[in-house]
Amino acid sequence: MSRSIDVPVLVEEARAGTTRAVGRLISLVDDQHPALPEAMALLAPHTGRAHVIGLTGAPGVGKSTTTDALVRALREQGARVGVLAIDPSSPFSGGALLGDRIRMSASASDPGVYIRSLASRGHLGGLSVSTPQAIRVLDASGFDVVLVETVGVGQSEVEIAGAADTTLVLLAPGMGDGIQAAKAGILEVGDVFVVNKADREGADATVRDLRHMIQLGEGTRPGGWRRPVVKASATDGTGVGDIVTAIGDHLSWLAASGTLRQRRTGRARAEITALALARLQARMGDLGSGGTLDGLAERVVDGATDPHAAADELLVGLGAD
Amino acid sequence: MSRSIDVPVLVEEARAGTTRAVGRLISLVDDQHPALPEAMALLAPHTGRAHVIGLTGAPGVGKSTTTDALVRALREQGARVGVLAIDPSSPFSGGALLGDRIRMSASASDPGVYIRSLASRGHLGGLSVSTPQAIRVLDASGFDVVLVETVGVGQSEVEIAGAADTTLVLLAPGMGDGIQAAKAGILEVGDVFVVNKADREGADATVRDLRHMIQLGEGTRPGGWRRPVVKASATDGTGVGDIVTAIGDHLSWLAASGTLRQRRTGRARAEITALALARLQARMGDLGSGGTLDGLAERVVDGATDPHAAADELLVGLGAD
Repeated sequence: MSRSIDVPVLVEEARAGTTRAVGRLISLVDDQHPALPEAMALLAPHTGRAHVIGLTGAPGVGKSTTTDALVRALREQGARVGVLAIDPSSPFSGGALLGDRIRMSASASDPGVYIRSLASRGHLGGLSVSTPQAIRVLDASGFDVVLVETVGVGQSEVEIAGAADTTLVLLAPGMGDGIQAAKAGILEVGDVFVVNKADREGADATVRDLRHMIQLGEGTRPGGWRRPVVKASATDGTGVGDIVTAIGDHLSWLAASGTLRQRRTGRARAEITALALARLQARMGDLGSGGTLDGLAERVVDGATDPHAAADELLVGLGAD
Repeated sequence: MSRSIDVPVLVEEARAGTTRAVGRLISLVDDQHPALPEAMALLAPHTGRAHVIGLTGAPGVGKSTTTDALVRALREQGARVGVLAIDPSSPFSGGALLGDRIRMSASASDPGVYIRSLASRGHLGGLSVSTPQAIRVLDASGFDVVLVETVGVGQSEVEIAGAADTTLVLLAPGMGDGIQAAKAGILEVGDVFVVNKADREGADATVRDLRHMIQLGEGTRPGGWRRPVVKASATDGTGVGDIVTAIGDHLSWLAASGTLRQRRTGRARAEITALALARLQARMGDLGSGGTLDGLAERVVDGATDPHAAADELLVGLGAD
């Protein structure tokens, strides 16, 4: 594909544990590099081994600190851990904020830990095209656990639940009443709930409210897994062991119940669809900038046509009508 | 299209100010009803008159109260106001929480106000397919202002900025430090900033920090509009007049600078693309459930193929390869 990158060598090095090669493969993902399909094809046979854990919560609940504590605890158990921090995409800068990752520099010198920030751009069909592919790189490179951390209010926690085997939802005391939590959609996506900053006033009330709301929702959910609420204080390590236990319990349940394969198949379906749509969107983009799409948009603004009719015209231009 | 709906009559009634007809048209949008393209075609010539205002902010900053106060203030100026409250989508229930809309019942009996909750499902290319179409219904039905309210952290505030002429970003004192605000992406999407709950401790500090961060970002933005920070307390009406003034100033600037048409053309382009992608995705869905897509997903889970190769196969099946 690309003259400058020897993809088979890169994949071999990543699989042998070379951090630099892992980083270069994820950069291929991040750049949507032309060599990416080749890399993904070579990685495919080695995927499916990692436990993919999503970690989400509103800003300020302590996601970075909790991720940090979990990484340390999992390392103590001998697991290799990859961390993907998904930053909200910016339509202007396209950049990712790395500020709070600096605290994790203690782990940065450990070859058993790989940490990377990804921008969450490239949403299609509710799923970032990049995240699942970055997960695949880490999975095939032999990381036992892949932690995906994202700011979660609105669409993103639905997305993370779509990308993970186990979704961890973080809350903190005093985040507002129950309807706000329900509004944020967090109750439906979490497999394990963590009330962080448990030393703060109101922590017990938050745990109680949460348990109550989970119980109310339990009736409508597919049977078996009783979603636990864990109290923790990630800054001093309180409850981190309980989180690790809950995560392990959930993985056991996923495997025993057949839910693991079911979730992963659903995830693959969404990923394939998103990639197919991305290809089609790229072709639509080619019809833009001075072309068909721009002309159609001008006509919609003038009221000379409507978006539905314009979409039909666009598809004719794509040869997909 | 549909035997049971006389779309031309419905459009005529909505344009004549019948609230029930407006509601039925938005239900067509919400259901993605087969009669929708016909309705949109008939509405198109009457669009482009409303000022579309997006209102976003994290849970708990007082979005509903502020919307309520703005509706009253705009009504006093004689404007007809439509409100769309976008609730986070739920992949399980698909429902929208209407709880906090009950407070707005005072306006509900006023025929110059229309309030509707929409689920934010149907995301494609970072844009809900429903929201812009619901805006078009209200616009063509003669509402002078369309207020679109959404929970904003992560992707959704980028979306609202894409759907609105003017984006209002709400904050409250004590929402965490500057990097959290920047992380949430709110600085880049706001045209007008409102620090609500201004009677609370720390309000002045929040205003000061915000002004400072806006100033830092100003250099990289296209010239002209100096984004104001307004202090308000929506519960007692403080500062609501200032918000209305800031919104009016922004509209004047948009029109005078040519930015209004530019934004609307960009919005139409995104809408056309999203609708075209939705059609293609529906066709992919037809290839799923026991068909091509399911088989491809199983093979990806087994490591027998990778998502890129599977996406190529899927597009062959669509006739769009």
